[in-house]
Amino acid sequence: MPHEFDTQTEVSRNADGSYAAELWPGWLVGGGLNGGYLLAVIGNALRRRLPDKPDPLVVSAYYLSASTPGPATVAIDVRREGGSVATASVDLHQGDDVRITALATYGDLATLGDDVLTTAEEPELPPVEDCVPNSMAPPEVRAIAPLMDRFDMRFHPDQVGWTVGAPSGKGVLSAWFRLVDGREPDPISLLMVVDALPPVTFDLGMPGWAPTLELTAHVRARPAPGWLKVRHATRNMAGGMFEEDCEVWDSAGRLVAQSRQLARQPRAVVAR
Amino acid sequence: MPHEFDTQTEVSRNADGSYAAELWPGWLVGGGLNGGYLLAVIGNALRRRLPDKPDPLVVSAYYLSASTPGPATVAIDVRREGGSVATASVDLHQGDDVRITALATYGDLATLGDDVLTTAEEPELPPVEDCVPNSMAPPEVRAIAPLMDRFDMRFHPDQVGWTVGAPSGKGVLSAWFRLVDGREPDPISLLMVVDALPPVTFDLGMPGWAPTLELTAHVRARPAPGWLKVRHATRNMAGGMFEEDCEVWDSAGRLVAQSRQLARQPRAVVAR
Repeated sequence: MPHEFDTQTEVSRNADGSYAAELWPGWLVGGGLNGGYLLAVIGNALRRRLPDKPDPLVVSAYYLSASTPGPATVAIDVRREGGSVATASVDLHQGDDVRITALATYGDLATLGDDVLTTAEEPELPPVEDCVPNSMAPPEVRAIAPLMDRFDMRFHPDQVGWTVGAPSGKGVLSAWFRLVDGREPDPISLLMVVDALPPVTFDLGMPGWAPTLELTAHVRARPAPGWLKVRHATRNMAGGMFEEDCEVWDSAGRLVAQSRQLARQPRAVVAR
Repeated sequence: MPHEFDTQTEVSRNADGSYAAELWPGWLVGGGLNGGYLLAVIGNALRRRLPDKPDPLVVSAYYLSASTPGPATVAIDVRREGGSVATASVDLHQGDDVRITALATYGDLATLGDDVLTTAEEPELPPVEDCVPNSMAPPEVRAIAPLMDRFDMRFHPDQVGWTVGAPSGKGVLSAWFRLVDGREPDPISLLMVVDALPPVTFDLGMPGWAPTLELTAHVRARPAPGWLKVRHATRNMAGGMFEEDCEVWDSAGRLVAQSRQLARQPRAVVAR
């Protein structure tokens, strides 16, 4: 039985060398499809194009227009291939509209050294069963975010005040994370995971849609099976924009992915 | 009297719409020209191409090969222009060799809101006169890094153990920073400043050259005149690579730029 993440991010090669994808409505959030989902679609196309360098090491995506469910094309231009990495420029477009333009460097995570000198600290989360599941999210949130049904997320109980109109104001959200059908994480799914949680602005009392201008993700290791820990934080909300940092830790306690995005602050503050 | 930063990063428009630059040897470090310097050259070309959107908001650069002093060409393809921002793809090449391929979104920092809710903490640095000037750097460092002569840097005295074979091991470097000829900071120079300090790996006992795979910089405000505070840190050194985060704070105490790069660990550990 294939997992929905795999069937809904798969690509097939077109005669002209580009890749065809079908974007699924289950990944809608606010005005468009989730940016992390689109990054995973791009990630799959790059993996097909670079079979001996199967893993994203770093991907930078610039979001030009909102994607909609339906057919899409991923066009890849390999800019440099040689040695242990390859770098490509990539467009995801729907008809004449470019949705995302991106750059990516791919390699093989299995060939990297096994040194780990991480000084970042793993997010402290209570046991899964003591956290707050996304199935308890308020109906108005679920209505604008069908993608939440793709995930089993368990939020830190100290960071869900925004669901009852009492955000902590700290600019931090963290949660246990797995795909709802048990599909285990891999480097491609990590590209989605870094953009899966609600925007950290929810914890700052700004529950609206926060459009991403740019997102860069580093994938640093193949994740171990099991629950991931995901942490979003912002430290520089100014001038109508904010940066959002994301860390993803695997069940073996390794920091497997880091991302940072630049996003616009939500314009509408929902009345509470 | 023009400042060297301006004359050495200036570009002129070619007949085909690309921009010509002359890369100066004073920005050499290790095996090539400093990546931040090259980013400023690219930044100037983009500013010329997008006159009503003069400021970089975010730039992501992928370094494909080492640049050398001499002529270079910056080719720009504007991918989307409309509303308050424009996004372009950019190549810096020398002859047939692409040195950098980049994506950038430009806008006008002067038009952004004046809200500042930054929770990041300004680096704690002793007064300028109590810090350690780069003019005291050991000769072997200055020999491989002519670019240090472009800068007046004053390092935190607790973070210069690497200069005497006693790195702190914390993975943090911070310094006061200004251009040596007094040229004041602006959004374009910030693109250089985020890559100006020695690699943070110096503070981890790895004093070699740390080649950047990718660097993304967010410029968040026009900096006030005067000294900048610059802080480099890494928290995830693993698998032969590390991320390096940089923050730049202006003299008014504002976090004006943030960057993150993915770099390879230095291969050679210098004997001490």
